[in-house]
Amino acid sequence: MKILIIGATGAIGRAVATALEGRHEVIAVSRSATNFPADIADKASLERVFAAIGKVDAIVSAAGGAVFKPLSALTDADFEKCLHDKLMGQVNVVRIGWRYIRPGGSITITSGALAHEPMPGAAAISMVNAGLEGFGRAAALELGNERVRVNVVSPPWVTETLIAYKMDPTPGMPAAEVAKAYLKSVEGDATGLIIDARKIE
Amino acid sequence: MKILIIGATGAIGRAVATALEGRHEVIAVSRSATNFPADIADKASLERVFAAIGKVDAIVSAAGGAVFKPLSALTDADFEKCLHDKLMGQVNVVRIGWRYIRPGGSITITSGALAHEPMPGAAAISMVNAGLEGFGRAAALELGNERVRVNVVSPPWVTETLIAYKMDPTPGMPAAEVAKAYLKSVEGDATGLIIDARKIE
Repeated sequence: MKILIIGATGAIGRAVATALEGRHEVIAVSRSATNFPADIADKASLERVFAAIGKVDAIVSAAGGAVFKPLSALTDADFEKCLHDKLMGQVNVVRIGWRYIRPGGSITITSGALAHEPMPGAAAISMVNAGLEGFGRAAALELGNERVRVNVVSPPWVTETLIAYKMDPTPGMPAAEVAKAYLKSVEGDATGLIIDARKIE
Repeated sequence: MKILIIGATGAIGRAVATALEGRHEVIAVSRSATNFPADIADKASLERVFAAIGKVDAIVSAAGGAVFKPLSALTDADFEKCLHDKLMGQVNVVRIGWRYIRPGGSITITSGALAHEPMPGAAAISMVNAGLEGFGRAAALELGNERVRVNVVSPPWVTETLIAYKMDPTPGMPAAEVAKAYLKSVEGDATGLIIDARKIE
C-alpha cells in the first residue's frame, strides 16, 4: 500500500510510520517535511500536497493543535485555534483527501479520550475530539458510496508526549502501542469506527 | 425558579416554555423577542441579554442553525456557519451564562441524535452535535466547582419540524415529549448528562 501520514513528526505519527514502513510505502507529510510540507490548519497546503502525491491507499492524520486551559481562561481566540486546527484541519483532510483514495482505501483521523473522559482544562479539546468522532461517523456513511473508508482513532495520553511535557508518564500509553489502532484502520476492512487505542488487543 | 429560554420561538423552545410556565417564571429570549432579543451566533447580544436579566436558576438553549447538505457539497462557509452558530453559539451560552446561574442551577444546551446516528447529508451537523456533547461533559466537570450544573439534551427529529419542512413526520417525536428531557435537566439534580430525549420515561 501507498500510505500518506500527516503529522509524521509527532509522537503518534512517527510510531505509525515505523509500524507501517516495513511492509508499505510510507510518505511523510508534516509542517517541516522537505518534500511534502503541509499544515492541516492551512487548507491550501493540504490541497497542494495531496495533488502532488496523487492516488494513495490510505491517509492517516495524527495532526492538530488544540488549547488546554481552564474553561474560564479559554479565550475566543483559543476556541478558534481549536476549531480551525485539530477539528477543521482533520475535517479538511477528509473533505479533500477522499478524492485521492483508491477503492477500498481509508482515511484515519485522530480524536482522543478526552472526548468522553474530560478533565479540568479540557473543555475545548473535549469539544474538538467529540466533534471529530461525530464527523467521522457521518463521513464514513457518505463516503461508503465512493468506496472510501473513514475511521477515527481515539488515543489516550501518550507516554512520550507526557515525558516531553515533563508530566507524570504513569497514565500514558507508549506511542508504539497506540499505533496498533491505526494499523487496524489502515490494514483492516472496517469503516465508521471510533477505535479506542486502549481496547486493541 | 427563574428560567431563561434561548430559542424560545422554535418548536422545542416553545414546548419547553409551555411545560415550565405553569410552575416557574420563564423569560423568553430569541432573535425576534421584544424585551430580550439575542442571536446565539452574536456573542455580544448574549452578553447584553444575560446582563439585563441578571441572576437566574436555569438557562435553556434550544437554538442554533446548522447546514444539512451532502459532504461533497458542504462549503467552507457552510462549516463556518455550523461552527459559529449551533456549536460556538451554545458554547458561548455556557461560557457567558454560568456567571448568572444561582447555586445549584443549571445550563442545558441542545445537541441531537445525528451526533451518534448519522444520515447522508448530516456530516456538519453530526460534527457539531457531537462537539456539543464533548464540551458539555467537560464544562459540567469544571463548573461543578461553581455549583453550576450543565447538561446536554439530544433530541431526535421533532414532529413539528418535519411537518414545517414538508418531510415525512413518521420518525418524529412531538416537541411536548422532547420537552420532558429539558425538565429532567432543569428540575433535577444531575450534571454532565447527555439526555437522550427518546429515553425519558
